[in-house]
Amino acid sequence: MAEYSVVGKRLPRVEGPAKATGASKFTGDISLPRQLYGRVLGSTHAHARILALDTRRAERLPGVKAVITGGDTGGRMYGHSPGMADQYPLAVEKVRHIGEAVAAVAALDEDAAQEALDLISVEYEALPAVFDPREAMKPGAPQVHDVECNIARTFQEHFGDVDQGFQGSYYQRTDVFTTQPLAVGAMEPHASMASFGTEGSLTLWASTQSPFRLRKFLAGALGLEEGLVRVIKPAVGGGFCGKHGLFSNDFCSALLSTRTGRPVRMALSREEVFTTCGGRMPMVIELKTGVKQDGRLVAMEARVTADNGAYNRGSLTPMVLAGSLMNLPYRLPNVRYAGYLVYTNNPPTGVQRGAGNPQIRFAIEVQLEMIAEELGLDPMDVRLVNALHPGDVTANRFQIRSCALEECIERACGTHRWKERRGRLEEGQGMGLACGDHPVSGRSGPHDSSLALVKLDQSGTATVLTGAADIGQGSDTTLSQIAAEELGIHLAEVRIISADTDATPLDLGTFGSRVTVIAGNAVRAAAAEARSQVFEAMADSLEARIEDLEARDGRVYVKGTPGKSVSFSDAVSEAISRGKAVLGRGLYDPPTEKSDPVHGGNTSPSYTFGAQVAEVAVDRDTGQVEVVGLTVAQDVGFAINPMGAEGQLEGSASNGLGQARWEDLVRREGAILNPSFLDYKMPTALDMPRMATVLVDSMDPEGPFGAKGMGEGGLVPTVPAVANALYDAMGLRVTELPMAPERVLDGLNNRRRPRK
Amino acid sequence: MAEYSVVGKRLPRVEGPAKATGASKFTGDISLPRQLYGRVLGSTHAHARILALDTRRAERLPGVKAVITGGDTGGRMYGHSPGMADQYPLAVEKVRHIGEAVAAVAALDEDAAQEALDLISVEYEALPAVFDPREAMKPGAPQVHDVECNIARTFQEHFGDVDQGFQGSYYQRTDVFTTQPLAVGAMEPHASMASFGTEGSLTLWASTQSPFRLRKFLAGALGLEEGLVRVIKPAVGGGFCGKHGLFSNDFCSALLSTRTGRPVRMALSREEVFTTCGGRMPMVIELKTGVKQDGRLVAMEARVTADNGAYNRGSLTPMVLAGSLMNLPYRLPNVRYAGYLVYTNNPPTGVQRGAGNPQIRFAIEVQLEMIAEELGLDPMDVRLVNALHPGDVTANRFQIRSCALEECIERACGTHRWKERRGRLEEGQGMGLACGDHPVSGRSGPHDSSLALVKLDQSGTATVLTGAADIGQGSDTTLSQIAAEELGIHLAEVRIISADTDATPLDLGTFGSRVTVIAGNAVRAAAAEARSQVFEAMADSLEARIEDLEARDGRVYVKGTPGKSVSFSDAVSEAISRGKAVLGRGLYDPPTEKSDPVHGGNTSPSYTFGAQVAEVAVDRDTGQVEVVGLTVAQDVGFAINPMGAEGQLEGSASNGLGQARWEDLVRREGAILNPSFLDYKMPTALDMPRMATVLVDSMDPEGPFGAKGMGEGGLVPTVPAVANALYDAMGLRVTELPMAPERVLDGLNNRRRPRK
Repeated sequence: MAEYSVVGKRLPRVEGPAKATGASKFTGDISLPRQLYGRVLGSTHAHARILALDTRRAERLPGVKAVITGGDTGGRMYGHSPGMADQYPLAVEKVRHIGEAVAAVAALDEDAAQEALDLISVEYEALPAVFDPREAMKPGAPQVHDVECNIARTFQEHFGDVDQGFQGSYYQRTDVFTTQPLAVGAMEPHASMASFGTEGSLTLWASTQSPFRLRKFLAGALGLEEGLVRVIKPAVGGGFCGKHGLFSNDFCSALLSTRTGRPVRMALSREEVFTTCGGRMPMVIELKTGVKQDGRLVAMEARVTADNGAYNRGSLTPMVLAGSLMNLPYRLPNVRYAGYLVYTNNPPTGVQRGAGNPQIRFAIEVQLEMIAEELGLDPMDVRLVNALHPGDVTANRFQIRSCALEECIERACGTHRWKERRGRLEEGQGMGLACGDHPVSGRSGPHDSSLALVKLDQSGTATVLTGAADIGQGSDTTLSQIAAEELGIHLAEVRIISADTDATPLDLGTFGSRVTVIAGNAVRAAAAEARSQVFEAMADSLEARIEDLEARDGRVYVKGTPGKSVSFSDAVSEAISRGKAVLGRGLYDPPTEKSDPVHGGNTSPSYTFGAQVAEVAVDRDTGQVEVVGLTVAQDVGFAINPMGAEGQLEGSASNGLGQARWEDLVRREGAILNPSFLDYKMPTALDMPRMATVLVDSMDPEGPFGAKGMGEGGLVPTVPAVANALYDAMGLRVTELPMAPERVLDGLNNRRRPRK
Repeated sequence: MAEYSVVGKRLPRVEGPAKATGASKFTGDISLPRQLYGRVLGSTHAHARILALDTRRAERLPGVKAVITGGDTGGRMYGHSPGMADQYPLAVEKVRHIGEAVAAVAALDEDAAQEALDLISVEYEALPAVFDPREAMKPGAPQVHDVECNIARTFQEHFGDVDQGFQGSYYQRTDVFTTQPLAVGAMEPHASMASFGTEGSLTLWASTQSPFRLRKFLAGALGLEEGLVRVIKPAVGGGFCGKHGLFSNDFCSALLSTRTGRPVRMALSREEVFTTCGGRMPMVIELKTGVKQDGRLVAMEARVTADNGAYNRGSLTPMVLAGSLMNLPYRLPNVRYAGYLVYTNNPPTGVQRGAGNPQIRFAIEVQLEMIAEELGLDPMDVRLVNALHPGDVTANRFQIRSCALEECIERACGTHRWKERRGRLEEGQGMGLACGDHPVSGRSGPHDSSLALVKLDQSGTATVLTGAADIGQGSDTTLSQIAAEELGIHLAEVRIISADTDATPLDLGTFGSRVTVIAGNAVRAAAAEARSQVFEAMADSLEARIEDLEARDGRVYVKGTPGKSVSFSDAVSEAISRGKAVLGRGLYDPPTEKSDPVHGGNTSPSYTFGAQVAEVAVDRDTGQVEVVGLTVAQDVGFAINPMGAEGQLEGSASNGLGQARWEDLVRREGAILNPSFLDYKMPTALDMPRMATVLVDSMDPEGPFGAKGMGEGGLVPTVPAVANALYDAMGLRVTELPMAPERVLDGLNNRRRPRK
């Protein structure tokens, strides 16, 4: 492997000190002269007609500057997925879930704004509601939207000959798995600050993952030309796919600012985030798998029914991925998928880190254990025999150019001495294995690109301009490292300006584990061009050919002549003084294609793989499943920053453990009964098991320095690994989540057979 | 001339509505959490040793967070001209003028900061001081700096054979002219907001003309690496060369922010601006001119003695230009110049709009009238016979590629029916003519460049990124027009981000009338490249060759086939979807050379010319010289925005009228006696005469669309035009400025001969 100076190093976050000392400015830290504070009034009904809406008392409250309702919004619908615009920014005529935004106010302070909400009177006529997607699919069910059918969208995929595959299989089985609804638990709730300018333009500072996407959605919802809207992303406290679109605070702060001519700041409460911003969609997965006698997969078929809730929060993505990712991480010639996305009067569900993959993978990896058990095979061997390898092309035409799944399985299992210890631990203790995968980005439109600039200054400093959004995952650091490596300078000499739709070039946003590869390749190309510009200017005075120059450690050298060099800053000054533009431009659009439900397509430049082994200790009396050890072995391509990569994997595991053990949005008649971190249990640092993270390099040919994406793949195997460990410990098969004490205890009391 | 859609049009300022409604954010409008307020303590002595400096009482005052003195500054000197770093940011050991910054405080509010200043006790030992530059040049004069000679710098230029020229001349004369010190009267006093980040970097929002220069100076004075400093220019209320460097508020707010870890805002008072920030340098000009019998110039020699005050405020520029601009706007084969820049204990003078040109031109244009009178020639004819023409090369090698001076003279004189009316007005009324010139930019270092970016978004909007600073002159509008014209879109579809050392590319700053040409050409090139990128992507689908496409009025057309077109926004979307980078880059470094005092050199890409006729009415009893009419005919190359160009000319004339009639920094023993707008009279709108502005196009081959610079040339002829009109009205020759009532009255009472 090449010797690198900056990439591949465990370097602290570039914005770390500012974050640690509180100097970082999040949206809520921004203040502007004359600013107002906004609040949203949510529906108290799951399904109702709005008969009357009286805002007059609120408007008269001292300090209140504006009140808006659905009638003020211009009647333009929006949605988080293309072609699925199903919601008015503020309810018009009907509400379809509890918490749906009905009105909003802007006032001189938050107390006045809150008080004004209480003075708005809404007269509702309750309508019949439906909360179970299977009920909602039945004829005669209450209609959530004013169309006959509550099925928002159906999905069909079919590769190979599935029926023939099943016919030719040695063993096949069908099981039903159910996943629970999750909330997106980003530390920072959604917030925005809108400032409408006199010249008709709007600036929105927002806690968002994708400023360019938010700009598009917001301009559309407001009926403004997109060019008049500027979205700036300050520091952001997490996204996890929950901030990948337009939310009521964005729209309402913007409209209230246009109404008042004053800046309006608006943050959602935790309860509002839980009830209006989506989260990991609950799915019922009917899964049928056929294998050869040695465990080799022959055919797989899934039928997924998912509760969309009342409105679209990007729910097409998990529905698509749940199907297409059946093709990973194993060789599988025949695949069929049917997905049904169903409207109910529940609060919107949607997309969350992993986007459908955690749900489908839970089902597949648990069922694979059932199959292994039936066939008397070691689950590790079953996975090894099926694992994809570089050069493979899947049934749906994913091109696997790098894959270290086999090594991940061996290293995860090796860490726990799987072959010696598995099945031999004492009663109540067990270990489980699961594999996972995730694509890096995914072409869903005409392009999947990122454009970056790298600007050099006379002092030898580089400024990276990128539209990519660091939402806490560390991309500002990763991209700065890439620029520094390519320029041969130190990380401290790189500044980064990111995610401002006016100041920085186009990037689609932070989602799909795409930033390191997509924006990273763009930044690398931009830095390389800037370096070439410097080399061109220096070749004469160093008496060398351009191709014989190299930059490292802040100097430009003539290769093979270490004595002949000049400092990078002097070289840049020289280039500038010779009238060179030392500003590099890099565009990266991956060599991928849009998927076609019939023929498939290689939608991603690379695919990530991983294997995890969990060890659990189960309390027979309480049903508590304690995870006492977890090894995450992940094929990362190449870790630009191993410390950051480990952080991503630890964070992923934390999310997986949350879904496995605790997290569950408890919904009754459309109301969320636990809309706070007091009642909705997310794991904290204290809840984490002893963890080992193993970074496996596969040197992807398309990624920058061989890197792949890191954001999501690591959470996919965690839930089934814990479920499989629970079975190893107690002989209890779990097909519903979470593995909460009451469910485990119930299961143990009713299990068909004790642990072997 | 080509048909343009956006350039050449009278379009309102892009930031006009924000300025008019108060929405524009100037530095003083910026507030940051935890910010402090800074104030500077100025010296009460013109020349003194600091024996003791006690800040303890100030430090104990509640609300005071930090006090700094010269001992805290690291002992790095700075200066506003290269090679002339002569000042510590805060006085060390000695003070050299009244008002010199001695200490600074940061406190929770401005009152506490002000009170703290009163609690700082400074013990001075007064030293002998010198206030007259001619006295200061004598041996034995008090030494302002700790070197033997008070002459800061001497300047020598010599082109042609001056002695032989004088020998061959028909008539020659020598006169002495004296100009007064002026204050820079930008509406917004100098202000800055400094925020020192935890990662060791410093952000400074500053009211500055040249963010990149300020960054360099500030980093140097603080001993920081330049790459760690970011300078951002908010809205700025005027500069006039007075904000082209580092000022005590910049340095002190930055150092106080590093000391306190809190943001520090600091604005100078009007008195502090007058006493510390420089202004138009007073000069004593001994001028000798020789002519042929028909008035043709043969030789000219000037000896200039200038009062620098105690420290450098960019004073090298007026000293250099006073010499080199003797070569303009007339044909003149033999030129000699000697300049003496002299330190005194006056507050620093320095550079102001026009930079030496108003001073030397006053002398030349008044003396030319004396010569014309002696030879019995019409001053208009003398100017016409001497005027430069396109294709001329001056003695110092300025290359005149465009010049409409002759037309300017004819149109200015024509407006006033010069040939009929001049010399025939009734007693007390008169008209005067003067010509002027100014270079556009000027190469003083290895490069004189600007780099710009033009970024296109899917909605067809363009964002211009430029380091050029709009300080009120309208460059954001001009540059936006240039981008819009080149892209074939409407001005409303162009956004501009300017003057942020991190976010925008390198530009040397706003000075020397350079922005329209230097940054304008860069923006034009960037826009042209972006347009080409769009054309490349569209050629196929429009079934045309790239060179057959054109963009106008928001559409891309196939030339000659009006039916075949696509909207610009669709074309950009198409280009992006095809993975094209629609981001153009433009660099402009003019084809000029650095001047050499012996051989000269073509330092500027173009030169501007103009002629003005003033009409005055003089009150014999009071000495009041009322300017009742003024015509400004200016060769602007091509007016990108005629309304903006007229505004520049009207503003220039206002400055010229101020110098002619009222403005004068009254200094006694180093103290400024009139340091406020109450006592220092600047003209307001009510003081302006009836004005005509005539924009003359000369279509400069190097300028964007033929444009030249507009910022300074227009003020140069105003003072001598008024002086010459006064002679026409009253027979009174004025060789000292201003033409204040007491001086005029005195002159009238002592004049050698009455008006003919």
